[in-house]
Amino acid sequence: MEEKTISNSRRCYKQWLWFMVLFMSFSVIYVDAVWPMPQMISSSMARYTLNPREFIFQYSSGSSAQPGCSLLDSAFERYFPLIFTDYRHDEWFRFPFTVVVHVERAECEGYPDADSSESYKLSVCSGQAALRAETVWGALRGLESFSQLVYQDDFGEYFVNETKIEDFPRFQFRGILLDTSRHYLPLHAILKTLDAMSYNKFNVFHWHIVDDPSFPYQSSTFPDLSSKGAFHPSTHVYTQIDVKRVIAHARLRGIRVLAEFDSPGHTQSWGKGQPGLLTPCYKGTVPSGTFGPVNPANSSSYQFMTRLFKEVTSVFPDSYVHLGGDEVDFTCWKSNPDVRGFMLKMGFGTDYTKLESYYMENMVNITKGLNKTAIVWQDVSYGLYLSITLAGYRVILAAPWYINHIDYGQDWEKYYTIQPLNFTGTEQQKKLVIGGEVCMWGEYVDATNLSPRLWPRASAAGERLWSDERMTSSVIDAFPRLVDFRCRLLRRGIQAEPLFVGHCRHEYQGI
Amino acid sequence: MEEKTISNSRRCYKQWLWFMVLFMSFSVIYVDAVWPMPQMISSSMARYTLNPREFIFQYSSGSSAQPGCSLLDSAFERYFPLIFTDYRHDEWFRFPFTVVVHVERAECEGYPDADSSESYKLSVCSGQAALRAETVWGALRGLESFSQLVYQDDFGEYFVNETKIEDFPRFQFRGILLDTSRHYLPLHAILKTLDAMSYNKFNVFHWHIVDDPSFPYQSSTFPDLSSKGAFHPSTHVYTQIDVKRVIAHARLRGIRVLAEFDSPGHTQSWGKGQPGLLTPCYKGTVPSGTFGPVNPANSSSYQFMTRLFKEVTSVFPDSYVHLGGDEVDFTCWKSNPDVRGFMLKMGFGTDYTKLESYYMENMVNITKGLNKTAIVWQDVSYGLYLSITLAGYRVILAAPWYINHIDYGQDWEKYYTIQPLNFTGTEQQKKLVIGGEVCMWGEYVDATNLSPRLWPRASAAGERLWSDERMTSSVIDAFPRLVDFRCRLLRRGIQAEPLFVGHCRHEYQGI
Repeated sequence: MEEKTISNSRRCYKQWLWFMVLFMSFSVIYVDAVWPMPQMISSSMARYTLNPREFIFQYSSGSSAQPGCSLLDSAFERYFPLIFTDYRHDEWFRFPFTVVVHVERAECEGYPDADSSESYKLSVCSGQAALRAETVWGALRGLESFSQLVYQDDFGEYFVNETKIEDFPRFQFRGILLDTSRHYLPLHAILKTLDAMSYNKFNVFHWHIVDDPSFPYQSSTFPDLSSKGAFHPSTHVYTQIDVKRVIAHARLRGIRVLAEFDSPGHTQSWGKGQPGLLTPCYKGTVPSGTFGPVNPANSSSYQFMTRLFKEVTSVFPDSYVHLGGDEVDFTCWKSNPDVRGFMLKMGFGTDYTKLESYYMENMVNITKGLNKTAIVWQDVSYGLYLSITLAGYRVILAAPWYINHIDYGQDWEKYYTIQPLNFTGTEQQKKLVIGGEVCMWGEYVDATNLSPRLWPRASAAGERLWSDERMTSSVIDAFPRLVDFRCRLLRRGIQAEPLFVGHCRHEYQGI
Repeated sequence: MEEKTISNSRRCYKQWLWFMVLFMSFSVIYVDAVWPMPQMISSSMARYTLNPREFIFQYSSGSSAQPGCSLLDSAFERYFPLIFTDYRHDEWFRFPFTVVVHVERAECEGYPDADSSESYKLSVCSGQAALRAETVWGALRGLESFSQLVYQDDFGEYFVNETKIEDFPRFQFRGILLDTSRHYLPLHAILKTLDAMSYNKFNVFHWHIVDDPSFPYQSSTFPDLSSKGAFHPSTHVYTQIDVKRVIAHARLRGIRVLAEFDSPGHTQSWGKGQPGLLTPCYKGTVPSGTFGPVNPANSSSYQFMTRLFKEVTSVFPDSYVHLGGDEVDFTCWKSNPDVRGFMLKMGFGTDYTKLESYYMENMVNITKGLNKTAIVWQDVSYGLYLSITLAGYRVILAAPWYINHIDYGQDWEKYYTIQPLNFTGTEQQKKLVIGGEVCMWGEYVDATNLSPRLWPRASAAGERLWSDERMTSSVIDAFPRLVDFRCRLLRRGIQAEPLFVGHCRHEYQGI
């Protein structure tokens, strides 16, 4: 733990200037850094003892959220043991250290969405921390930062230093993709990932829920999709209750759940429970018995999709839905006489990309009709994959963070040094990049290795997406902070792997 | 699960010939394969239901081991829940399926060692399985194979097929190295690894217990070594009780514990608790404040080592001890005037390899004096590392199985296709290769990622070291067997990562 004096705000507070001068003269201040780095943070050497028995969270009198705000009430419950890791509380003392939370707009029962503000201000003084945020989502981010400011000395005593933070995310969309089709991820693995995401201030869980190998989503409209398309019809499915639990768990942590039902390709598992949906491939003039992408020539395909997405968009509250649309192989379409006939009829000639576009346009219209914004994969020239929001073609960067790929050594540096806006383009174009996401494709990943493969490697992308690039450009500066943060993740039960030789005060004690 | 007809024994049993003919005609036999592949296995379609309430282990009347044989008694206890994963036993029924174990020589309180026989014969018939072995160690291997023959159908019922196995290891030394210096591994992680090793029929735990970064071994003779050289003097150490527990846990599974105290290099952590042991490096004519390898010019170094290894060889019962001896950097020795003076006196000229050999010869003599056989690392021309047993220069192959190195994809194939004897040399020379070991160096590995990085990748090496190479030459044949075996490991609580897209009936339910 080293001295940390960081500010990228030009509006400096006079009272804090003094501390900054102080920083120059004293070099050791025992403050754990916050990961990802806040936009503006300054702390002094003045440190206050925290006693678990004299510590409470409180709503400020003027706060729009008040006791009964389920979201913040449960966040207070959650953060107490995250801050005081060893402690189980019994009785309160009279003059507790109080974290006073003030929220402008209480959306305590709402869901975070694309336009939710996550900014907050945090000021830690003697006996009190004041946390102010426009929204409950910002308050959650501030609680996370506060919890990371608390540290223990060698004797187990808790401390927090006088600190001031002004913070907001650099990018609005900071996602993690999990793939539950190539391997089924038990619910606990998803919930644990959501926990770790909130510690890293990620705010979108991109649920790549179905794909070729299996269809674990248990649809109420089309139950055969999972009963025939899942790896197992009862043990390897996500029931409606499971899905609701994921969405609720995510909501309480300010995380959106973006569902992806990828089509027309990547749908082999769909075909098992929905005969007639996929294109029968032909060998010469006879069906070969294998199937290709969704049949774009049948109106029944669109009727099915309309009904499925009607269900999906009512189950998942987010205003976005991901339609996939990647890696469509035309071989089977080309072999099928009905599809060829449809091409002729539509005047597409032999250009199957036109047929693909036709299909995707239909899908986008279906989602529009359901008042949702569609996202699709886009394979950009340099082999990059982006997710493009069709409304205005905003862009989410995914390709540099295919974190399922592994290398020996410290590859987090590679994920850390990505510069999302480092492309030739106008300011206007750069504004279209609304964020990025870490993708954990599931070919070689299931619940046994998900956590150590994800953390702390995804934390590198987490800081890149939240923090100011100028303040976080050095892997050398980031390394000791990330080492500390990884130990904190471990302490919170996240099975985060080590960055290099060394130790944590509390090693992983799992199975 | 597919048909499995494998035999490399020329002495075929007439009654089994019939089954083999049968194999040709019927293609589906529901028998899980045994991993690693036994030297000779044949099984028929005749399958018997096993009922947990009608199942016992028993010593044959003529067996030299009888009730009270701690090693096999505890193995029986252990294998019952490994075979009947869901079941907790209550009462016994009258005519149980009996696994009758016959052992020629009972070494029930002994330790496995380099010359322990591990061969066994297993014959599963209606109502009974007969397991015969020369030693208790062979009986353990046979129990493991038997446990892998038992499988459950979709309704949870247990079965075992009529089976005959004759089995023995191809190589006598089949090790796994764990590095507890670069990261401290909590005891539970070591014990869990020993469990998984026994499932894979590994028989040597090579404990690279200390190294530059930390000295976690709590020596009774030199307590300062760990109190000053461990990452933490009380939470990051192995006490004498811990070490005894590891040795006892290993013994019960027929696993030797080979301790490595690597010197003269890789000893930075030793210097903290043993001032004067390491060579002070010089910058010109003054000490630079840094230290190099153990000082080979001081007789006190050898006195210290004699006392340390006297303790070590009494704590670790194995007849082998590993002296390390790898990667000695001569820079510091060259800078030190005392060392230079010693070189002159000894007539070594400027050849520091002579000094290194002098040091190692002294170390080997120390261990000889303690009636132990020394093993050292040998950096062979092609960049290969071998462990050479100095008595007769027998060789343990380690370089191809540096399993801490990771790649994206199915790299188990690389570990599987190693041919340990594929070098140009005489039959006599090939006989000197007594085995191999999988090395999990700890730069990037601790308890968070040890298991999924080790299993089932190390299982590939496990089969290579146990089984007949001609019967296990195809990765295509091995793949579905290893997939099954990995699910079995998962079911036994080993956090083994997936090989590729797919699922296990019971997914990992850990934290």
